[in-house]
Parts: sequence; C-alpha cells; structure tokens
Amino acid sequence: MSSPGPAGGGGGPRRGAISRRRLLAGSGATVAGLAAATLAAAPANASEAGDTSAAVPFYGPHQAGIATPSQEHLVFAAYDLTTGSLSGLRSLLAAWTTAAARLSAGEPLGGDERPTAAPPDTGEALGLGPANLTVTVGYGPGLFGDRLGLARLRPAALADLPPFALDAIDPSRSGGDLCLQACADDLQVAFHAVHNLSRLALGTATLRYYQLGFGMKAPGTSAGGPQTPRNLLGFHDGTANRAVLTPGGLDDVVWVRGGDQRWMEGGTYLVARRIRIYLESWARTPLGDQEAAVGRDKVSGAPLGGRGQFDRMDLAATGAGGLPVIPATAHVRLATAASCGGAQILRRSFNFADGLDPMTGELDAGLYFICFQRDPGRGFIPIQRNLSANDALTGGYFEHTSSAVFACPPGVRAGGHWGEALGLD
Amino acid sequence: MSSPGPAGGGGGPRRGAISRRRLLAGSGATVAGLAAATLAAAPANASEAGDTSAAVPFYGPHQAGIATPSQEHLVFAAYDLTTGSLSGLRSLLAAWTTAAARLSAGEPLGGDERPTAAPPDTGEALGLGPANLTVTVGYGPGLFGDRLGLARLRPAALADLPPFALDAIDPSRSGGDLCLQACADDLQVAFHAVHNLSRLALGTATLRYYQLGFGMKAPGTSAGGPQTPRNLLGFHDGTANRAVLTPGGLDDVVWVRGGDQRWMEGGTYLVARRIRIYLESWARTPLGDQEAAVGRDKVSGAPLGGRGQFDRMDLAATGAGGLPVIPATAHVRLATAASCGGAQILRRSFNFADGLDPMTGELDAGLYFICFQRDPGRGFIPIQRNLSANDALTGGYFEHTSSAVFACPPGVRAGGHWGEALGLD
Repeated sequence: MSSPGPAGGGGGPRRGAISRRRLLAGSGATVAGLAAATLAAAPANASEAGDTSAAVPFYGPHQAGIATPSQEHLVFAAYDLTTGSLSGLRSLLAAWTTAAARLSAGEPLGGDERPTAAPPDTGEALGLGPANLTVTVGYGPGLFGDRLGLARLRPAALADLPPFALDAIDPSRSGGDLCLQACADDLQVAFHAVHNLSRLALGTATLRYYQLGFGMKAPGTSAGGPQTPRNLLGFHDGTANRAVLTPGGLDDVVWVRGGDQRWMEGGTYLVARRIRIYLESWARTPLGDQEAAVGRDKVSGAPLGGRGQFDRMDLAATGAGGLPVIPATAHVRLATAASCGGAQILRRSFNFADGLDPMTGELDAGLYFICFQRDPGRGFIPIQRNLSANDALTGGYFEHTSSAVFACPPGVRAGGHWGEALGLD
Repeated sequence: MSSPGPAGGGGGPRRGAISRRRLLAGSGATVAGLAAATLAAAPANASEAGDTSAAVPFYGPHQAGIATPSQEHLVFAAYDLTTGSLSGLRSLLAAWTTAAARLSAGEPLGGDERPTAAPPDTGEALGLGPANLTVTVGYGPGLFGDRLGLARLRPAALADLPPFALDAIDPSRSGGDLCLQACADDLQVAFHAVHNLSRLALGTATLRYYQLGFGMKAPGTSAGGPQTPRNLLGFHDGTANRAVLTPGGLDDVVWVRGGDQRWMEGGTYLVARRIRIYLESWARTPLGDQEAAVGRDKVSGAPLGGRGQFDRMDLAATGAGGLPVIPATAHVRLATAASCGGAQILRRSFNFADGLDPMTGELDAGLYFICFQRDPGRGFIPIQRNLSANDALTGGYFEHTSSAVFACPPGVRAGGHWGEALGLD
C-alpha cells in the first residue's frame, strides 16, 4: 500500500496548515495521520487556482452570510436534535464553529490533531479554495422546548410562523431545531461544508432537509454594481429591498438590539420559505401583465413610471383614467415598508430547481426565499400577511411550500464558539 | 401601463441584436413587440459583466459539449415524444437548433421576428452572457420505433443498455426519446436553456426528467491544467481517461466513422447513468482502503506505486508478499482499456445532490456519469460489465439508479438544423 504523496508543488505553509517539509519528515507516521496532515496542507496550493481563492472573514461581531454580498450558490440545511443532553449540544456547536471557521478559510477539517483511520475531511473540496464560503448557524423554536432546559432563553420573537393565506406547507421541508446556511461561489464548496458539518452532527442532530439554490450573485459585482440578479420570473430580484439598506439601515432592520434575550444582541432572525413558482403560467402571461403584477419593467427593473432600476417608486402617480401607474396589487407596492406598517427585511434568496412536479410534470422550481430581520413580527410576518391577501404574484403564481424560522446568534470572536451565546461554555 | 424602458447604458449593437436607437424609435409598436426587441438587445450590456462572457461555437463538424472542456454545471434533460408526426419532430429539431445557437451566443430567444404578447424568452438569464453554454442533442432508441417510420434509420449501436449486476434502475429517471445536455459555467444559464428549450417542445415532446450536476470544471484550468476535478468520493475524477485522450484519440474513441448509418458519421453515442454513492459508508472507510478501492492516492491522484497524478499505471507491479500494488479489484485497474478488451470512453460526468434518501435519511448524492463513445458495445457496456462484477467501488459503494443511451448526431453548419441528419429537411 502506498503512502499519500506530497500535496504538489509550490505554495508556502498557511496559517494553521502543515509545512511540506514537516509532512515529508513524518513518513514514519501512520497512513491515517499522514493523510490527515496531507489533507490539511493541500489548500496551500489550491488557493492559487484563482477565482475561488477569496475568503470571507468568519469571526466578527455579526455572523457572516447575512450582510455578506450574496454568493452564487446556497446549501441550506436544517437539523433535528437527537440528543437530550445539553453537553451534547454544546459539543456540537463548538465543533461546528471550529469546522466552519476552517472551511471558511479554505482549510479541510482535521489536520494532524485528529488522526483517525478514515480522513476527517471527505475531500471533495480539496483544491477549490474558500470560494467566499460563509456558514451561518440558526436555532429553531424547538431548541428552546423543555427537553434541554433552555426554555428561559427563548426570545419572544422566536416562534413558528403563523399560517398565511394560500400556504401549501410541506412539513418535511419545514422547521428544524438547528440550521446551517452555507453559501459560496462554488456549489461543490458549499455542498462539502454541509456534508462535513452534517457528519459532525451524527449522534447529536440529524439532517432534516437541505435545499440547493443558485443564481444570486449579481452580474457585474466586480464593477461595484448593486446586487440585483434575476429570479426565475425573469425579473430583477429585491431591487428596492437591497437598494435602501445602507450600513446604517442594517442596524435598524437586521441586527437585534435591546431585545428580551441579551444573548441575541447583535444576532438576527432568519425566515426561510420555499416558494414554488408556476413558471409555465407565468411564461404565458403577457409581458404587460407580468410587469403590472411585479410593478417593474422586466428588462430594466425600473419601477413602472420610472426610467432607471433604482428610481424611487412613485406609489401616488396615476395614469390614464386616474388608475395608479403602479397597480394596487403590484408586488412592489404591497411589499414596501409603507404598505406594511413600516416592516422591513433584508432579503437573501436563491433560485432553485428540484426536478419535476410528479403531479403535473412541470418544473418544480422557484425561489428559496430567505430574509433576515430584527423581529419577524416587524419584518416577514406583516409583509407576508399583506402579500398573501392582496399580491398579484402570490395569488396567481406562487405557492409557499415550506416555512422555517431560526434565531441566528451574534458572531463569535476567534477562539469562541456559537454555543457561548446560550451560556454553553 | 408603461412600455419597457431602454436596455440600459453602454454597449453597441451585436450581431443579431437590435440597436438602442431603433428600439427607442419603435415606441409606437406593441408592448409585446417592444419587449421582444428589448429582450434581444439586452445582452449587449450583459456580456460586459466579464466572467460569463465566454462563448463556445455552436456550429461545426461535431456537436459542442462533447469534446468541449467540461463546464462547471450540467442540466441534463430527457423527453418523451408526444407526437406521431414526422413534421412535428422536424419542426421541433429545427426550432431547438435555432434556439440552441442563439443561447450558446448569449442571445435570448425571439427578437422582433417573433413578437407575441408573452415574451418568447423567459428572461432569467438576461445579462448573464453565454457562460460557455453548450447544448447537445441526442436521439433515444424509442425515436426509431414504428411510430414515426424511422426504424430504417436506427443504428445497430443504439439499443437500450443491458442489465448489469447490482443495477437499481428507476425507470422514471431513465431512457427518453430525445435528450438535451446543457452545460455552462453558470447554473442559471444552463437551467434557462433547458427551461426555454422545453417550452419549445410543448405539444411535441414532454420533459421526462432532468438532472442538475456540478463541480466538474477543473481548478486551475486557466493555467492549462488538465481537467481532473474531484468527485464526491473526494478523489480526482477520470484521470486516466481524460489524460490519454489526445485530439487524435477522440477520433478513435468518440466520433463515429463508417458505421451502418451514414447520418451518424461524425456523431457519437451518449450513455448516462445516475450513480448514487453511499457517502457515509465511504467516509467511514479507512483512507488506505479508499485508496485501494480506487487504485490511486487520494490527495495527489497518483496511481498506487506512482508519484504524480499522470504517471503511468504499473498494473504488473507487486509489493509485499507478491501482491499487486494496484489491487485486483481496484477501479482504475478494472476500468482501463487493457482490462476491458480495449474498450474506451470519453467521460464527462458531474456531481449531484438531490436531497435526502427518504428511506435512510442519508444524502441522495453521487455522480451523474456521462460518457461518449463510437459504439456503446465497445465502450461503456464491456467496461461496466467488468466493473459491476469485480470493482470494489461498484460492489461496495455505488448504486446505479438510472440508465439512458442516445445517438448524438454530428454538428450542423450555420443555417442547418439537427433534423437534417435524419433526412428531415
């Protein structure tokens, strides 16, 4: 049996990695130990590959993957806790934190500190670099039930979403005690993260569902363009929402301040909704009717009556016959803060395509809608209540097939871990 | 109701596009006509976005997407014919050819030559550029049944694959009268192609299944590195297969010459097999056993006993106790031409992740294996017969869950269409 070869030419050692010289000197070690060392050293070369070499800092006052500009791909995973042990949860959150930090830096799991016969890292992302990977954790309402004794730590804002008109929720795609949102510019990198983090959960939590998403890195981002890619309606997605959020705006909309649970200070709430779009019905809708339903020009993204994508919506403007230029049922009118008692959210959605609907043979595709807010009761809930009752899109072309809400704790400092927010030191 | 705004700043007209001046001059036209014109003009700006601007030529002696270096993403679609009319098939193939050529150039469907109330293009790829999109068509055995009177044109090499040991074929993911393989460096571009080409088939053929794949663009390709990305085993995929195929080798392995059907001259046969991998069993396998099952070093990709990824396999080498260095059941030994009566294929596989297995809760993920060859009977079939009987990977970790074979006609000249190969002029 051969021993693993060196990791390849070039590249000095990186922080946390193992130098090539040390690797070669270890030839008397076990195959497993060597393999772990070799796996750890590999990314030193990998990051030379170029376009996947960019990394998003993992540590900080807020978690990455929320205010981070959207990457191209999503793997969203939800877990059911299978332990009744608080120390089990603590160990998982500590292991997830350490692993997520390594993966976000493009480093594989393990290294020579965890030599085992089977490599600690499954290996499919070796050589790909971090690809702007972010891993964001969230705690579902179920984590704060009686099982673990954490009920006193449950924020009032964290509760299962209420039912909305036209909901068609599939429980197997909904809920979860924990979630991980992995986003990256390379799907293999995001998949690898969820694959390996799910393995770390074995015995403590089990993967309940996961959802792949794509298509939400803005073309022209490198030129400083705003983040407005297109959804599967063919329209720019979330123009107004993304445009109005300045760094100051994030504090008002996204980050928890002065809530009922101090551990959530600097955190936020994640809402996920899988929105199936009736793509063929939509495609057969005349362009003018599509634009009336959205409230924007399809190509330019300008609000009806405006000229440029980021022009202010004039909700009061009237046209022929005194009718509003932006119709009463237009999505952009109904979703805007002024129509929802001031409610605002930060959208961070992705397109999805999950095969064919077995009932109809049509594409089972749409938008995996994710948003962040300080309080769902002043964010998603009033907006969706308004949309589900009045919106031309929601009424005619959308079907919400999943629902989930999670409390995302604040970020961690280097050396800390996600469980500390819950007092699990 | 507003009329669509201009397509945005900058960018001169492209071949086949409509100038901005002409667009604005058309303000008296119908909304639908304007929309089509605007949609057609949009990519002039889009291709400035940068990294998705590369295009693969559509026309040529062979179809694109076969010898083309692998892109990052796959959307593979299979269709059932729903018409008994030869002219219906002809119209579909002509429409598909025209559309595939436009999409491969980054242009949306339609333009002002097809003004309709609903836009001819669904729009989700506007602004993304061609992203190296290739669209490859294939004809399944069912196309040559009695229905259309095409039986006399069926090549002897085109027949459903035989059953193999350990097969677990799901018919709903298998077969098909027609296929389209769309590959691109942007999943949204590949999805958009299949979405819109499927719409063109309405009334003639219906989407039977489609499969998303990822992760097969090699890191470091831009530096001229070989195409050996990693599969979900964590190993380099298809090293030997890709390395031995020189441009001369493609003629021997891939392109049909002198077959029983003249229309297939310059074409090839596509075999698709969805290979579920038991990822957790694999991840728990000691590294040495993983490497023995594959026959290669996991990190470097070197054949056991070798030092570099592209070192020649020494199948005769023996080690301690006279045992072969590359075990008798190693995948690389059993899949090599010398072990399969000289059989060779061009692999063009992609990783997939399709959610959870509802029976076990494990990842339903693996390799969507695609290969091309002059004759499946001298390519995939003898190789898979050998692997299914003897291979450590196939026996222990793989499950073939789909099977399909298609005859891919040669390429078309500009102005021609795919149906011409079948005499459908």
